[in-house]
Amino acid sequence: MKKLKYLSLSLCLLTGLTACTAQQDSAVQTGAQGTEWRWDKGTIVVETPERPAGQKSVIGLTVPKMEVVRVGFVGLGMRGPGAVERFTHIPGTQIMALCDYEKERAERCQKYLKAASLPKADIYYGEKGYEELCQREDIDLVYIAADWLHHFPIAKYAMEHGKNVAIEVPSAMNLSQCWELVNLSETTRKHCMILENCCYDWFEMNTLNMAQNGVFGEILRAQGAYIHNLDQFWDYYWKNGKDDKLGWRLDYNMRHRGDVYATHGLGPVAQALNIHRGDRMKTLVAMDTKSVVGKALVEERTDSTCSNFRNGDHTTTLIRTENGKVIEIQHDVMTPQPYNRLYQLTGTKGFANKYPVEGYALDASQLSASGVQPKVDDLSAHGFLPADESKALVEKYQHPILKKYGEMAKEVGGHGGMDFIMDSRLVYCLQNGLPLDMDVYDLAEWCCLAELGELSMDNGCAPVAFPDFTRGEWNVVKGYKHAYASPEAEQESMEKAKAFTAKLKEQGAKEWAEEDKSK
Amino acid sequence: MKKLKYLSLSLCLLTGLTACTAQQDSAVQTGAQGTEWRWDKGTIVVETPERPAGQKSVIGLTVPKMEVVRVGFVGLGMRGPGAVERFTHIPGTQIMALCDYEKERAERCQKYLKAASLPKADIYYGEKGYEELCQREDIDLVYIAADWLHHFPIAKYAMEHGKNVAIEVPSAMNLSQCWELVNLSETTRKHCMILENCCYDWFEMNTLNMAQNGVFGEILRAQGAYIHNLDQFWDYYWKNGKDDKLGWRLDYNMRHRGDVYATHGLGPVAQALNIHRGDRMKTLVAMDTKSVVGKALVEERTDSTCSNFRNGDHTTTLIRTENGKVIEIQHDVMTPQPYNRLYQLTGTKGFANKYPVEGYALDASQLSASGVQPKVDDLSAHGFLPADESKALVEKYQHPILKKYGEMAKEVGGHGGMDFIMDSRLVYCLQNGLPLDMDVYDLAEWCCLAELGELSMDNGCAPVAFPDFTRGEWNVVKGYKHAYASPEAEQESMEKAKAFTAKLKEQGAKEWAEEDKSK
Repeated sequence: MKKLKYLSLSLCLLTGLTACTAQQDSAVQTGAQGTEWRWDKGTIVVETPERPAGQKSVIGLTVPKMEVVRVGFVGLGMRGPGAVERFTHIPGTQIMALCDYEKERAERCQKYLKAASLPKADIYYGEKGYEELCQREDIDLVYIAADWLHHFPIAKYAMEHGKNVAIEVPSAMNLSQCWELVNLSETTRKHCMILENCCYDWFEMNTLNMAQNGVFGEILRAQGAYIHNLDQFWDYYWKNGKDDKLGWRLDYNMRHRGDVYATHGLGPVAQALNIHRGDRMKTLVAMDTKSVVGKALVEERTDSTCSNFRNGDHTTTLIRTENGKVIEIQHDVMTPQPYNRLYQLTGTKGFANKYPVEGYALDASQLSASGVQPKVDDLSAHGFLPADESKALVEKYQHPILKKYGEMAKEVGGHGGMDFIMDSRLVYCLQNGLPLDMDVYDLAEWCCLAELGELSMDNGCAPVAFPDFTRGEWNVVKGYKHAYASPEAEQESMEKAKAFTAKLKEQGAKEWAEEDKSK
Repeated sequence: MKKLKYLSLSLCLLTGLTACTAQQDSAVQTGAQGTEWRWDKGTIVVETPERPAGQKSVIGLTVPKMEVVRVGFVGLGMRGPGAVERFTHIPGTQIMALCDYEKERAERCQKYLKAASLPKADIYYGEKGYEELCQREDIDLVYIAADWLHHFPIAKYAMEHGKNVAIEVPSAMNLSQCWELVNLSETTRKHCMILENCCYDWFEMNTLNMAQNGVFGEILRAQGAYIHNLDQFWDYYWKNGKDDKLGWRLDYNMRHRGDVYATHGLGPVAQALNIHRGDRMKTLVAMDTKSVVGKALVEERTDSTCSNFRNGDHTTTLIRTENGKVIEIQHDVMTPQPYNRLYQLTGTKGFANKYPVEGYALDASQLSASGVQPKVDDLSAHGFLPADESKALVEKYQHPILKKYGEMAKEVGGHGGMDFIMDSRLVYCLQNGLPLDMDVYDLAEWCCLAELGELSMDNGCAPVAFPDFTRGEWNVVKGYKHAYASPEAEQESMEKAKAFTAKLKEQGAKEWAEEDKSK
């Protein structure tokens, strides 16, 4: 009888222990944005929703060629109008509709169409104006540049109505939105692209080409950032009435911790590191400073104490990949310092750095191996390449996309031209039935740093397991590539595009002339 | 009976649960270097040994004035000889002894004494040569520049024999050594200083002075690093016999994970952030890349596969302080890129950056507030200060220590002069009975990143609670300061020093002349 007692006591304790251990590790907790997570030996693991049976990934997704890309623009505040203007320079597009909360801001964009002799677009406005736009059957692409909080609802509505979408950054504000967009793209089989322009900047594109050609050896580490003091800009962001003292961007920063604007920094390096094309982000840790400037900005504007400005003045996020690389992304929109995206690649055989001065470091043998003859005898990687060698390297490895669009981009402009290259590539891929340069998994991976970082920092800077948005397919494609049509196909679609636009401009010229007459 | 059964079962489960919870959190684990630690809600906590009763801290420690600082040098390989040479330029010092594992290396340093007309020093050599040196009663300071693994044993022996010590970096290789040196300094009441030369470099000193005068507002973030490709240097490190293929420095990197060489980066920023003078490092997280270059270096030299190179090619360490600041320290001695200590201060009102180009960013109002009149009308912090404004700022805030030693330092040399300034300050403080610029807590704080980082990374990049080496006194002193004697006291000790050295040189000249004659 005693033995049995002891046995049952031991069993009981054991059960208690096991149950407890199991409980300790797997007790589900809820983060600030409602995401469920649990501890797994000191690492935070967020739930990965199962892919519904029958639903397939959109790795390499294409939609049928479009001779003409018919666009509707939603959100015409700070970024939108520039996009409208850029599209008037792209053949084989048709701007069907312009939408903004405020009717006047939508109408103001007609001037770009007029300037390009393109026909007027239809105007939509009000809180739900975009719904009517999205219901149209004659729109292929909805281009979204609304405020951050409206990115997702508009994209969701558009995709549910069969549209491809291109969304300004950040394209999703939290994990829930990331997963919904992934599911939407997978179910609707429509494109859902993040409008990350920094991937198309000159240094980034040329350096990517060098990286892909092995100039730096194996890339072990990469950096990016959004360091941009916004003190002059906060008050330009739309305010929802006279009681809105902060504007939506400052308000958002006040309410949310974590790198809320990671994509300009992360986009170019994710491409250089082949994220979900052979490697994947695996572990994330974040650390922020307290808020001093942010807090002061709110107190100035509201004439009261700000007791909780969630976003630290400076946030640093570190990410380790499956293949042992490290990515560092910084965020600082508060303190005074020169603009800096920190773009940097550290490789086993070379090094590239953009700010504050662009430079490459390779030793002489690596330079020769890369097909550039050094003029200087004692080149080593201990210093940056001298001007001539650097120029020669860049010329040799100029990215084909820059060769194609670079000159026109500099004329059309938009952050020095990179915006135009981005839009041109989007249209090119749609016209030629190709995969886009960025898929919905890029969007999710680049936009989830905010919430993952918040989870980390709200738990003492604990490591967070990075979800796999591809749900098992991050290693299917080997190496990031831009898609190109065959020269013949490209030629054909370009001719059709030009022909179409020429006709459209004739029509537009007529319409505007008539309108001017009637005034 | 049944009730009793259920009661005991419940009690049993409860006990199991509580025991288990307590166990889960507080189960002691042992790290790679033997340090005990436990989980505390996802954070790694290392044990902090209790200060023995009666033992007091050495915050602000002084030792009695020394008219002459009598020095013994131990370790005359790569750094040591330069130190001997520098000391021959410092009045009021006497080089009593030279010690190296290899007799010939010790003897070779006599040439510096001869060149300065100073008397010969006594020679010590062999594995335990330093013990005899440390037993001498006529040595005040043992200056240690041996290989890393001998830093601690020599320092320990020296302090146990009543000597003040100055130790090259890294001065302690793990937490255990850190705590032992702290205890030794606290029990012997002798100085134990880390020879961190980078605190004395021009940009760092002037910028520190600016920081302490509020030029940057409140500093929120600071960076440092040791990014120095050592591919040309590995084979210069002493090898212990012909079977030693790697040399001690590469061997150490192979066997140890974490930032093993953090102090050049951390020293200057710890001073700017008043670490244990009003703030303290609280939470550490580290993340490294895999080892590719390190592994290859070993394989080249050993002609065999290297299955475990512990130190990642690039290591990043993030530290959050009690007052909400963030420090970032990087380490990369493997990949090809220009030398970079990443020194950078981010403040609420300004910004300072050293590499690759020195620069300050302040807006015009902050510049005026700092007493410098901007010549340019539209200065803003969005760009670095133009050359004239930058020069004016530096002139206004030139550090008094640079004013005093700068010119001579440039002549005497040593990493551009900073080594000489460091040695000069050490001697000055000893001659004037002042606290040294760096105390044993600085040593411990700057040298423990290696092991804390290793603990973090061996546990999935978990946060580690930074131990408080002051054991409760990190907030006693408010603000980091260099110590200065009164002008009168300074004058007096300088005159004594010069007089002594003049006489010593007479004696030395005679001795050397006699020796030359007898040859």
